[in-house]
Amino acid sequence: MSVIYNRVALIGLGLIASSMFWAIKRAGVANEVTGYARSEATRDTARRIGLCDAVYDSAAEAVEGADLVVLCVPVGAMAQVAKDIAPVLKRGATVSDVGSVKGAVIDAVAPHLPEGVHFVPAHPMAGTEHSGPESGFAELFDNRWCLIVPHGADDTATAQLEAFWQALGANTERMDVAHHDQVCAVVSHIPHLIAYTMVGVADDLNRVSDQEVIKFSAAGFRDFTRIAASDPTMWRDVFLNNKDATLEILGRFTEELFALQRAIRTGEGDQMFDYFTRTRAIRRGIIEAGQDTDAPNFGRANAKS
Amino acid sequence: MSVIYNRVALIGLGLIASSMFWAIKRAGVANEVTGYARSEATRDTARRIGLCDAVYDSAAEAVEGADLVVLCVPVGAMAQVAKDIAPVLKRGATVSDVGSVKGAVIDAVAPHLPEGVHFVPAHPMAGTEHSGPESGFAELFDNRWCLIVPHGADDTATAQLEAFWQALGANTERMDVAHHDQVCAVVSHIPHLIAYTMVGVADDLNRVSDQEVIKFSAAGFRDFTRIAASDPTMWRDVFLNNKDATLEILGRFTEELFALQRAIRTGEGDQMFDYFTRTRAIRRGIIEAGQDTDAPNFGRANAKS
Repeated sequence: MSVIYNRVALIGLGLIASSMFWAIKRAGVANEVTGYARSEATRDTARRIGLCDAVYDSAAEAVEGADLVVLCVPVGAMAQVAKDIAPVLKRGATVSDVGSVKGAVIDAVAPHLPEGVHFVPAHPMAGTEHSGPESGFAELFDNRWCLIVPHGADDTATAQLEAFWQALGANTERMDVAHHDQVCAVVSHIPHLIAYTMVGVADDLNRVSDQEVIKFSAAGFRDFTRIAASDPTMWRDVFLNNKDATLEILGRFTEELFALQRAIRTGEGDQMFDYFTRTRAIRRGIIEAGQDTDAPNFGRANAKS
Repeated sequence: MSVIYNRVALIGLGLIASSMFWAIKRAGVANEVTGYARSEATRDTARRIGLCDAVYDSAAEAVEGADLVVLCVPVGAMAQVAKDIAPVLKRGATVSDVGSVKGAVIDAVAPHLPEGVHFVPAHPMAGTEHSGPESGFAELFDNRWCLIVPHGADDTATAQLEAFWQALGANTERMDVAHHDQVCAVVSHIPHLIAYTMVGVADDLNRVSDQEVIKFSAAGFRDFTRIAASDPTMWRDVFLNNKDATLEILGRFTEELFALQRAIRTGEGDQMFDYFTRTRAIRRGIIEAGQDTDAPNFGRANAKS
């Protein structure tokens, strides 16, 4: 695989950035990767485990001479980072990110970027329930989708970033900002919010203990808890920064839920049956799209589940 | 493994019953297994694939001489089955079931059972998104929980059923009726309802297509869809028959959801952060309880996901 960017700077060194580093090395698409994290402990850990070729004590130092700068910090921190690095950005460099929302990121970052710098926001839709510099691994993005939201950037810079993410294992797709935030509200943000709520409710009950919930969790609850274990900082910032789309989908959700609640209260069996039948088709669609397996238990070994 | 029941009758031949048959054979805990299903097509399929040692054209014939009768029909069908088999039940036989709710099952079945028959309702907490006589497999219950809800049955009959389910691979636990329905509302029924709702909402949107939802579903949505593909008949009957516990948990859930919605609308970041941090602990509890793995993606191979 040939080099796509000579020097890549990763600002923020959590799960995504660390995985990017290992995937970049695996693919050989950069000659050098620099890194910066706000916390000294994180920088020390990164140096200790060989994460990045060089870890700097300021974002500006990390970004100097970089051809690609990727902001891997929580959305709420992006404006400050953009201000810090703007004076140092090389002309012709590409600035990108990995945030789960795009409107707010663009609003936070774009005003600070100088002329001659390409801004190509991106969103690799991948993650695990772990955080931090030691949580990354090269395969995280394999066969995942990375949404590319070019913001006034020319086609060459956009295509270059697409090639980069494809080399890291992802499938890419271009999307405009508003549509991105809508899609993600549906497929990611609201599911996470709902999972958080369900786990919170289960935790609060008096007559059913946490131990019982945990013990019998394979019954359906477990699927919720995986996504409810995601990084709290990241998710707080997602909901603070994708407010409109989130509230819209949430409103729809509660409408549907109340309709089903009424069907339950009044014993409307047919209505429920029709509803449940319809949702099965969507599941089949997902399996056919190759996004999952219908092997029992997602194909996970039965040993401990 | 020694024989626990000489003859077992399975009434209803779907996923659970068919899996029980294969698990019974694997364990060698019965000398003979008879079967009955209401649909002729199902009975033909069962005979064709060797499901059960003998398949009869009526429940009464299947139950004759049986030491254990397991009702594997939807909860809504149980009363009629109980009436049909009551005249034929052998004195000293055990009648059990596999329903996901217990209060309604007991109300439906107990009144019809004659003196001298042990009634030990049970609930194996296992399943896949598939249905029908061909969907069963012996390993379905391995390391799963089977809740035992003895209803006036003596300890010998109860212990015998527990040994049976353990031989089929399950862990067993005794629980009273009301508590069973509460626990299951939390760990299973409401998660399923919520998953159904989320999938239904996603299907209904105008600006985000089904194809996009399906395509980007690994982002969190996928975890919902697995449980939203469950059997519509079974689930309709669950909600019709566990109304009180369901509505109670649903009420709690909507309270929490509205509280989070308000936090989003008003930008209460700290409140969200605290809430999300708390839920992470529950997830950790599940992993420690051995009910799941924290390998990325539940340890599923990355090839197609």
